[in-house]
Amino acid sequence: MTALGAPVLSETAMALCLLCILLVPFAGAGLALVNAGLGRSRSAAHAMMASLCVAAVAALVYVVCGFSWQGFIGRPAHELVLAGKQWNWIAAEPLFLRRLPLDGSPASLAACLQMLSVGLAALIPLGAGADRWRLRACCLSTVLLAGCTYPLFAHWVWGGGWLAQLGVNYGLGHGFVDAGGASSIQAVGGFTALAIAWILGPRRGKYSLEGVPTAIPGHNAVLVLFACVLALVGWLGLNCAGAMLFTGAEPGRTVLVAINTALAAASSALAAAAITSLRFGKPDASLSANGWFGGLVASSAACAFIPPAAAIVIGLIAGALVVFAVEWFELRLAVDDPGAAISVHAVSGIWGVLAVGLFAHFRSPVLNVAHGPLPGPTSGDAGQWLAQVVGVATLLGFVFPLTYGLNWLLNRVCPQRVPMEGEQQGLDLYELGAGAYPEFPTYTDEFTLR
Amino acid sequence: MTALGAPVLSETAMALCLLCILLVPFAGAGLALVNAGLGRSRSAAHAMMASLCVAAVAALVYVVCGFSWQGFIGRPAHELVLAGKQWNWIAAEPLFLRRLPLDGSPASLAACLQMLSVGLAALIPLGAGADRWRLRACCLSTVLLAGCTYPLFAHWVWGGGWLAQLGVNYGLGHGFVDAGGASSIQAVGGFTALAIAWILGPRRGKYSLEGVPTAIPGHNAVLVLFACVLALVGWLGLNCAGAMLFTGAEPGRTVLVAINTALAAASSALAAAAITSLRFGKPDASLSANGWFGGLVASSAACAFIPPAAAIVIGLIAGALVVFAVEWFELRLAVDDPGAAISVHAVSGIWGVLAVGLFAHFRSPVLNVAHGPLPGPTSGDAGQWLAQVVGVATLLGFVFPLTYGLNWLLNRVCPQRVPMEGEQQGLDLYELGAGAYPEFPTYTDEFTLR
Amino acid sequence: MTALGAPVLSETAMALCLLCILLVPFAGAGLALVNAGLGRSRSAAHAMMASLCVAAVAALVYVVCGFSWQGFIGRPAHELVLAGKQWNWIAAEPLFLRRLPLDGSPASLAACLQMLSVGLAALIPLGAGADRWRLRACCLSTVLLAGCTYPLFAHWVWGGGWLAQLGVNYGLGHGFVDAGGASSIQAVGGFTALAIAWILGPRRGKYSLEGVPTAIPGHNAVLVLFACVLALVGWLGLNCAGAMLFTGAEPGRTVLVAINTALAAASSALAAAAITSLRFGKPDASLSANGWFGGLVASSAACAFIPPAAAIVIGLIAGALVVFAVEWFELRLAVDDPGAAISVHAVSGIWGVLAVGLFAHFRSPVLNVAHGPLPGPTSGDAGQWLAQVVGVATLLGFVFPLTYGLNWLLNRVCPQRVPMEGEQQGLDLYELGAGAYPEFPTYTDEFTLR
Repeated sequence: MTALGAPVLSETAMALCLLCILLVPFAGAGLALVNAGLGRSRSAAHAMMASLCVAAVAALVYVVCGFSWQGFIGRPAHELVLAGKQWNWIAAEPLFLRRLPLDGSPASLAACLQMLSVGLAALIPLGAGADRWRLRACCLSTVLLAGCTYPLFAHWVWGGGWLAQLGVNYGLGHGFVDAGGASSIQAVGGFTALAIAWILGPRRGKYSLEGVPTAIPGHNAVLVLFACVLALVGWLGLNCAGAMLFTGAEPGRTVLVAINTALAAASSALAAAAITSLRFGKPDASLSANGWFGGLVASSAACAFIPPAAAIVIGLIAGALVVFAVEWFELRLAVDDPGAAISVHAVSGIWGVLAVGLFAHFRSPVLNVAHGPLPGPTSGDAGQWLAQVVGVATLLGFVFPLTYGLNWLLNRVCPQRVPMEGEQQGLDLYELGAGAYPEFPTYTDEFTLR
Repeated sequence: MTALGAPVLSETAMALCLLCILLVPFAGAGLALVNAGLGRSRSAAHAMMASLCVAAVAALVYVVCGFSWQGFIGRPAHELVLAGKQWNWIAAEPLFLRRLPLDGSPASLAACLQMLSVGLAALIPLGAGADRWRLRACCLSTVLLAGCTYPLFAHWVWGGGWLAQLGVNYGLGHGFVDAGGASSIQAVGGFTALAIAWILGPRRGKYSLEGVPTAIPGHNAVLVLFACVLALVGWLGLNCAGAMLFTGAEPGRTVLVAINTALAAASSALAAAAITSLRFGKPDASLSANGWFGGLVASSAACAFIPPAAAIVIGLIAGALVVFAVEWFELRLAVDDPGAAISVHAVSGIWGVLAVGLFAHFRSPVLNVAHGPLPGPTSGDAGQWLAQVVGVATLLGFVFPLTYGLNWLLNRVCPQRVPMEGEQQGLDLYELGAGAYPEFPTYTDEFTLR
Repeated sequence: MTALGAPVLSETAMALCLLCILLVPFAGAGLALVNAGLGRSRSAAHAMMASLCVAAVAALVYVVCGFSWQGFIGRPAHELVLAGKQWNWIAAEPLFLRRLPLDGSPASLAACLQMLSVGLAALIPLGAGADRWRLRACCLSTVLLAGCTYPLFAHWVWGGGWLAQLGVNYGLGHGFVDAGGASSIQAVGGFTALAIAWILGPRRGKYSLEGVPTAIPGHNAVLVLFACVLALVGWLGLNCAGAMLFTGAEPGRTVLVAINTALAAASSALAAAAITSLRFGKPDASLSANGWFGGLVASSAACAFIPPAAAIVIGLIAGALVVFAVEWFELRLAVDDPGAAISVHAVSGIWGVLAVGLFAHFRSPVLNVAHGPLPGPTSGDAGQWLAQVVGVATLLGFVFPLTYGLNWLLNRVCPQRVPMEGEQQGLDLYELGAGAYPEFPTYTDEFTLR
């Protein structure tokens, strides 16, 4: 593995990329607020505190050791020779980012972006574990995510690993392509959310004895909908920076990325609003916000390679998927996911990854992380589609079992769910000793007595 | 019409412009929060949901067809020959941004900026229609705005249309100049707000039988004042990007734009605080926030061509105008505008446009969208002042009647106002089926019984 | 004094710097929200209104006259000759930024950054004066800060003044170094907060007759924790822009700055959470948020010259310092500081300044504001450490007495504290005539009756 595939950035491209990275915390802010707003008021401070701690732990663990396993295209890595071909499976960097010059090089920008986006991935499971997940367990689970699951899969996708090599090794299009992290950030976070939701079990009172779910409304719809705008800005930064760093998109192409990202979010939110309006008579604000997030997630993988009309289609389908997936998980699988984290991040993330195979058109020279810029135009073909399917299969067959197993083990060592009394009191009082809104009376009994 | 007037951007200028555009959603977030905060708690979720839907509809409609009528300087357009002169009145682009290379060219940046700023214009009427405007009607009204009114007027100002040609055709200074959209975004949105407020009529209980208005306080002053900071960041991006794209300001001049924008907001908010303090004994927080927004709006047109001291003067006058306009509309015209959208966006927008004629000094070569960079310095003169007046006359004499007529027709087809029971219940319950703050008791009767 | 030391920015560096500056208002938004959230609900609107007014006054005063005393490296200044050496002590610029070309030059970028960051400094004392500081007095106190204290000290540090000259005059390393304003913004604001807290005295009911402090919880923990993310983005902009403008860091080095800033905040918040958890059994959300801010503050001075591991250490110590300083001020000094402004900004700021002496390693050519780029690497040495100590001594021995004296005089002319009845009613009703949340009932007696 040589440095052949690493993108070369002009000073302007470096500045553009860095500034996009500085917007990524807004994506985290959006997730934190949507999770807090969709939860109960008596665990609102806990939701925000957990978001802060989880993002902090993720950044620290990633800098201490996560980047060591993830690395970047063209930097030291371990390779297996299998069937006569080299398979790059893990990076070989020292701890604490030593030996990585933090000077604006693409590798340093990737490290900076990941330090923030691993926090984003770690925030996702908080939505699924809302109102019952211990603060200590969140933090330890994040250590596992940021120190193991995330860097491993992200290396395969973005670090010149074997998924990226599918193109050069087996001629599957450009290898697995994901510009903004629909798989490595969103789906990894979303599958972790599914693992957490299964391990924790549903909230007290969510299901009746007959297994019929009760709607537990979020405590602040204004926060939830405001979070959508913050998330848009964060995703604009994330997708633009990812497209430049991980697919070699030239700076001017970020205009396309920005337009596609916004259109996917817009069409997805409207699709969710329209579908809920048709089915329930009134549009559902929470599901529309979830749709908006789902559109952002789904846009991430293909944003740099599709025309605006395709972004609208991707968004429309993402919005529909989110609405039906939320219902399916709640009714069929009895998975209690207050923040819709699984539907929004895992389901839409997979859809976004597959959409690359359906819609992407690699018109201009695009960087293939495993074998340098390709000459001339190539369109999305069966090989590309297969590469994307292999990526999804890896998520389902390897990443999900890994994250489930790790969190199951963690649950043995340190029980992840608060005891009954904690859920009754609310996490704020039980775990933090103070409520989020101590001066405001609330109706709490109405729900807890069910 | 040739490409003569189109600005040429270096790669750095392109990156700077794109990143400024990525900040524009904060202007929308600011407007959404200020509208929600100034409304009632029982329609807070509806206000945010309407903001999200309206911004989404605006972006989609603009991409589908709005840009086709707006276009950009130097791109295909229809022209009339009148009195021996060419009048460019509408662009001729295909739908879905086809044939527009989304590669960082000025035209692609303009499309990206407009996709977001047309949403900003569409958010403005929500302030005027708060607490009584149906969600479906908001969205349909936005289709009319983003598909007709906005692109038409914006083409005349920013797309090389006849207002921009006033300089080359009749020697009126540089033609109509508006760097950041005080007319094309703000005044267009503000006049639509006036049309909507007139069509909807005042809220139940706003006016007594004798016609005396009652103060209905906003439900969350923290949101309202927080929105000011978000709006500042959004406007900084909007004015910098607009100055570069639509007036050919060189990248370094964005420093001047940023300083002027912030100073106008600051002085306008302080003027509003001082005036309300003198008149009512205590400064009014809502009106001060409205003043802040008014200063931002008023700064937009001239920000790239005035010294900081002039920006302070523009802001002071804008703050005073907002305070008196709010009172005038409420008391004299019996227009119920909970978010002060008309005063902030239409009145301040017009003031900003006229201020170009008073204060602008085109010191360095400035792009004139209709005849290329002018050599050497020229100062604001009578011709320039006249061009600005023609623009304002067009807003009053053409844009307002057009938007009023379209919305009046829409009201015939699909009644825009919720029925009485919807207003009593609150829009959240009536239109969305769920309140914004379901766990918090509220004092609602106190107001509804009036 | 010649222009020798002024940094030279490429067009890209200018664009990068300007965009970082446009993010600085988020730091102010973060401070405003944390102050409002840590205060009482009945003065929440007042807290936000004061933030808006104070930022506006600061920007205006700074543009009118503050920059005249501060200036920039290599621009006109007054010098004393003392002991055979030139001591640059105050700039000599005209009012209203006249004669400063606002064209993207480093001096114009510095003026733009300062216009915003002086507002940041002015927001800090609001945290200490929460729930009892008159709006008029806040604004007048800000006039003193933005027109006198801030520009004077900032000139010494960033304008080529005598603290920056310590290197060239006495060989103390590179002279006093502070990239992002840990001293000139944060500590100046923090010491002003201490002066204000002393002059105002504690809130009614904060201390019992025996002098035992009562915990008065903030009214909205969600705002407090959300503010942390906003502040992170603002500080990323602030530190990157400051490093480029005031220490001549090349554009690529901003990646290092960004990583260090985020790591310091993360480790500081976790340190605060861990310490409060160990001491009180449960992590304290407010103190963790304060820790996060403290980490940001402490990172500011050295962010461009330290490896990521050092940033983590600086953050861990800052988090511990904040927790113990809060207790020490509250219990030992009986200083009532609801927003922890003194601990977060003064104490962490001093720690950040000293950390430059301990950890900074000036590897690549770094601009020394008083004698141009130095050739080759030099490491933090005893001289550098001494220069930092001289800076801290100046803060303690000159800036604090000056700001205390000015505010003491102001208190004679215009009493800074609201009368008893104002505190009982809440500042919202007393000073603004309207509450922040008029539709929501609150438990207020519980606290006021103490």
